[in-house]
Amino acid sequence: MRNRKKIPEATISRLSVCARALRQLHNDGVEVISSDELGAKTGSSGAQIRKDLSFFGEFGKTGRGYYVKDLEECISRILGIDKKWNVALVGAGQLGSALLAYPGFRERGFDIAAVFDNDLRKIGKTWERVVVQDMSELRATIRARDIRVAIMAVPAPVSQETADLLVSSGVRAILNFAPAKISVPEGVELRNADLSTELECLSYFLSNEARVRTRAVSPNGGEDG
Amino acid sequence: MRNRKKIPEATISRLSVCARALRQLHNDGVEVISSDELGAKTGSSGAQIRKDLSFFGEFGKTGRGYYVKDLEECISRILGIDKKWNVALVGAGQLGSALLAYPGFRERGFDIAAVFDNDLRKIGKTWERVVVQDMSELRATIRARDIRVAIMAVPAPVSQETADLLVSSGVRAILNFAPAKISVPEGVELRNADLSTELECLSYFLSNEARVRTRAVSPNGGEDG
Repeated sequence: MRNRKKIPEATISRLSVCARALRQLHNDGVEVISSDELGAKTGSSGAQIRKDLSFFGEFGKTGRGYYVKDLEECISRILGIDKKWNVALVGAGQLGSALLAYPGFRERGFDIAAVFDNDLRKIGKTWERVVVQDMSELRATIRARDIRVAIMAVPAPVSQETADLLVSSGVRAILNFAPAKISVPEGVELRNADLSTELECLSYFLSNEARVRTRAVSPNGGEDG
Repeated sequence: MRNRKKIPEATISRLSVCARALRQLHNDGVEVISSDELGAKTGSSGAQIRKDLSFFGEFGKTGRGYYVKDLEECISRILGIDKKWNVALVGAGQLGSALLAYPGFRERGFDIAAVFDNDLRKIGKTWERVVVQDMSELRATIRARDIRVAIMAVPAPVSQETADLLVSSGVRAILNFAPAKISVPEGVELRNADLSTELECLSYFLSNEARVRTRAVSPNGGEDG
């Protein structure tokens, strides 16, 4: 029952970074690597990498390191990136169209197989070989094509209802780009890639830094306002 | 010295979502809202919102709620999104060009003022009114234009050296899209928006779900492989 153990999300993240480093090492002709070297390459440590891998069994030999190609394949299998997933993209606006053109999805096995929007000017148009469909066709299309993953690039006010529709149609995993907190039932995986929030965290940091700097050069060290 | 208190990152995130909800409410003609109603709208709670705001002073009156427009303006000032920031984009590949076209940056006060790449076919081309410059011009441009924020959309193997160059040129905040863990000195803010890792977390979830489902319907309940 090893697979059902709860694996920390940070472990999956680190393995994802390891898999890319191993692919690069393999391309560079490196055959064997120690956990410490792999740690250094991925901004982690050898001990952390050994611990992350230990969730999934035994890899490498003590003092001998890992075979780069074997470890890359194992991690790809663990992450499921050796598989292909049909993906529905909801929202064909400016962000949606950028995402449709982004090659990183297909490289990771995520093939955008259907696109939905409610804008009559977009419905029926072909983008990157996919025809934009009316939202009213979403449920039937997702069921017919056994789509389990969706990317949401819709405006914030309709994001929760869109997520509800996707889940009730059979979607099990959502990557949400809408700048809103949405909730999904247990058993459905939600990942947020909300650029707006990242940007506001940056601007908060910069503004606060500017205030601190202003104060630091002020001769009396007094407070703002 | 209230501004220098360490504010939890989750607070900034929630305020960012609140600011957008308040803008929408203002557009819809709503003038006053209670913390409980605002909590419900943002996937949080009234108590959480009152706590988040308490880091920055007193807002609203007990039992009277908040003035929507005033609170939106206060939060925008807190987040610094009432300001404009010149941004350098490093990497004019497929993701970089999608980001350059994405309107969300400018809407949040982040104006992409300079674009850098090392590909001779891209250097000198004008994209969205910005001329792509050679990486060798990065340091001088960032200093001359007092750029403090950078968006990195470079390949993983060069991400750390790119970050080092940005920081040594004066950049204080980086939004990193490269699928690699990078490190920056204390006093520099780093936000990761690594779509590849988000996708691999999704595919891990889906693969594991598929394994669990397969096992559940297997008559002997045995383990895979």
